[in-house]
Amino acid sequence: MKLLLILCYFAINTVIAQNVDHGKISIGKTSDIFPKPAVVIGSYGKDGMPNIMTASWTGICNSKPLCIAVSLRPATLSYHNITENMAFTVNVPNEELVKVVDYVGVKSGHKMNKFEKLGLTPIKADSVNAPFVKEFPISIECKVIKIVDIGSHRQFIGEVMDTKVDPSILNEKQRVDVTKLLPISYGGNGYYGIGEFIAKPWSVFKELK
Amino acid sequence: MKLLLILCYFAINTVIAQNVDHGKISIGKTSDIFPKPAVVIGSYGKDGMPNIMTASWTGICNSKPLCIAVSLRPATLSYHNITENMAFTVNVPNEELVKVVDYVGVKSGHKMNKFEKLGLTPIKADSVNAPFVKEFPISIECKVIKIVDIGSHRQFIGEVMDTKVDPSILNEKQRVDVTKLLPISYGGNGYYGIGEFIAKPWSVFKELK
Repeated sequence: MKLLLILCYFAINTVIAQNVDHGKISIGKTSDIFPKPAVVIGSYGKDGMPNIMTASWTGICNSKPLCIAVSLRPATLSYHNITENMAFTVNVPNEELVKVVDYVGVKSGHKMNKFEKLGLTPIKADSVNAPFVKEFPISIECKVIKIVDIGSHRQFIGEVMDTKVDPSILNEKQRVDVTKLLPISYGGNGYYGIGEFIAKPWSVFKELK
Repeated sequence: MKLLLILCYFAINTVIAQNVDHGKISIGKTSDIFPKPAVVIGSYGKDGMPNIMTASWTGICNSKPLCIAVSLRPATLSYHNITENMAFTVNVPNEELVKVVDYVGVKSGHKMNKFEKLGLTPIKADSVNAPFVKEFPISIECKVIKIVDIGSHRQFIGEVMDTKVDPSILNEKQRVDVTKLLPISYGGNGYYGIGEFIAKPWSVFKELK
């Protein structure tokens, strides 16, 4: 009994010490990377039918060659389309498209042609066998160069072949101006807009003392 | 000559037709997914020295088990640390940490102990052999379950083992409140803050007519 009390004492002290030490609390296994994108992936079916779905499990994964990784579940039509054609497009939305982004993420392409349903226009990409969405301000064309089965999701690693943009979101250097694009951040139980410019990368570090 | 002229005529018409068709212009191979994260990856060296570096080529890549992918170049110390220990942490910054994020992305761990240099505190993660940064509001502990060599970068796929957060950024449901966190978006030649709440996911689609 005495030994048990001593052990409890040390156990409690360890927990307190840890809390005092770093001040954080554990909230388990979460996807709390912020911000996360919410982009719309375009692909063709065997029958040539264009499909789109919203994905947030995506991002740049390589520089040379420049690649984007997108992870999809086998239950989605896009998973099978992309496995078949080894190609997809990444369509980046602006704030005005938030309802479309949400709809395309909730509804399945197995049950409808989402382009037709939403009055969107599929355009065949120049460089790969996948459709992009005319109404989205940025469309990136990707050729799958690697497939990685992780668990619930298959990760498609697509080499970037070209980017199509609405000229109105470009700056004088022909690069995307985020304040003209007005992209959507996903996470924290909300879609959020882009905020203020904070600082210049590869530069603001010089201000540290 | 006549044939050449006819071919030119069709070529020009095709280009014009394509431009009229979708209204976008091609700007080549870009990393124009928005928003992109800028997070700080923690790892231990062989000698037990804690290191951090900033990464933007990262994101969630699987749901079951929940995984985060981070792509790093062989030139970085973190690449070797993580290959050795098969563990890393993902430390999500807030706006106040923007100079630190920039510094940690510019300077190499081969040449200095960045924790010491910046007065940051390394804390050994509970669940994996990697340090997290006390001063960052969110730290996610990851165990590497797969390595994918893509080209310039090695992608480390880490299973999320735990998340440590500063309690002040949580809402009443013990989930991260983005408006309290104030994360940083990277891209478009700037670090940007988070903007206004736009809409509720899995819900706003109902407003489409």
